[in-house]
Amino acid sequence: MAATTDIPGYSLGSDAVARSPVTPADFELMKKSALFGDDDVRALRASHEIVKDQVEAILDVWYGFVGSQPHLLGSFSGQRDGQPLGDYLGAVRKRFGQWILDAARAEYDQRWLDYQHEIGLRHHRTRKNRTDGAASTDIVPFRDLFALIFPVTFTLRPFLAKKGHSAEQVEQMHAAWVKSCLLQLTLWSHPYVKDGDF
Amino acid sequence: MAATTDIPGYSLGSDAVARSPVTPADFELMKKSALFGDDDVRALRASHEIVKDQVEAILDVWYGFVGSQPHLLGSFSGQRDGQPLGDYLGAVRKRFGQWILDAARAEYDQRWLDYQHEIGLRHHRTRKNRTDGAASTDIVPFRDLFALIFPVTFTLRPFLAKKGHSAEQVEQMHAAWVKSCLLQLTLWSHPYVKDGDF
Repeated sequence: MAATTDIPGYSLGSDAVARSPVTPADFELMKKSALFGDDDVRALRASHEIVKDQVEAILDVWYGFVGSQPHLLGSFSGQRDGQPLGDYLGAVRKRFGQWILDAARAEYDQRWLDYQHEIGLRHHRTRKNRTDGAASTDIVPFRDLFALIFPVTFTLRPFLAKKGHSAEQVEQMHAAWVKSCLLQLTLWSHPYVKDGDF
Repeated sequence: MAATTDIPGYSLGSDAVARSPVTPADFELMKKSALFGDDDVRALRASHEIVKDQVEAILDVWYGFVGSQPHLLGSFSGQRDGQPLGDYLGAVRKRFGQWILDAARAEYDQRWLDYQHEIGLRHHRTRKNRTDGAASTDIVPFRDLFALIFPVTFTLRPFLAKKGHSAEQVEQMHAAWVKSCLLQLTLWSHPYVKDGDF
């Protein structure tokens, strides 16, 4: 189920989002490759209750990391002057917060698949900057997409542990997040991959 | 330092391997994106001592997983009849065992970078099957490359714990392996990614 939000550019479930080239049957096989099962769906949904009131604190950590790495901050900086674009960073941040909630919701229907493809297009040169009218760089380089799964999930872990769950439960939620990110980043990569190679 | 081996097709350090399009400076930045630091190099090297006499047992688990998933086994099966190719599976297995040792060695010099690119070409349609003269499918699909990081590193963990290291040390080694795999799979993806998008 798509969330109803007032976040500009957040279009999960909207008719404006095109059909994903990845079918639900393809995604079922991808889940098998990642050892992603029903336990992971349950673990992600359990994490929703935990993270929903910590979204801004989580984003503070993630934005702090990206902001500390010039080669990452570059994707949010001016194409010409290389200066960070505050409006762009702020607009993306609202959708990034909603992404945390959607990732934890783990509702893998057609609309979710379609929106993952849209997110990929917005990282790729196909549509980067368009949603926010940003005068930034042309593309988020492929080389950094998957690498970021580690800092994102590693720094999420302490937040997962803040509501009194057992070490085993936190470990299960963390593993489910890692798998979920591997699958999502693979979907986001589609526009980067040569035709026929996905 | 390249290992001296008699493994057919294992060519780390050989003049037959072309220069990687990814420079050492690029790789340094990729490491930063993954939060990969000197502690991770130390943790990987500590794991070398642990895994070096467990390579065949680790491969048994990994091959068992791939063999249980028809969509994964397909990349080691006949292009025409879809039957698993025993010779191909066996030839790749020897290099896969050496890969475990090389990944744990964590010697990121130019020759290592070059060989990572070679490994990518051998997964991609550019060079798949050629090393072993296999009559298999044209490409290992991109969609499964990163997903496999989870089962590979998750099933490695019990092996890392078999030599009496503390839970914290095992956790550090496991995390270093996850980061290392994220970085290596990114390097392997280069042939799949559109020109200029890496």
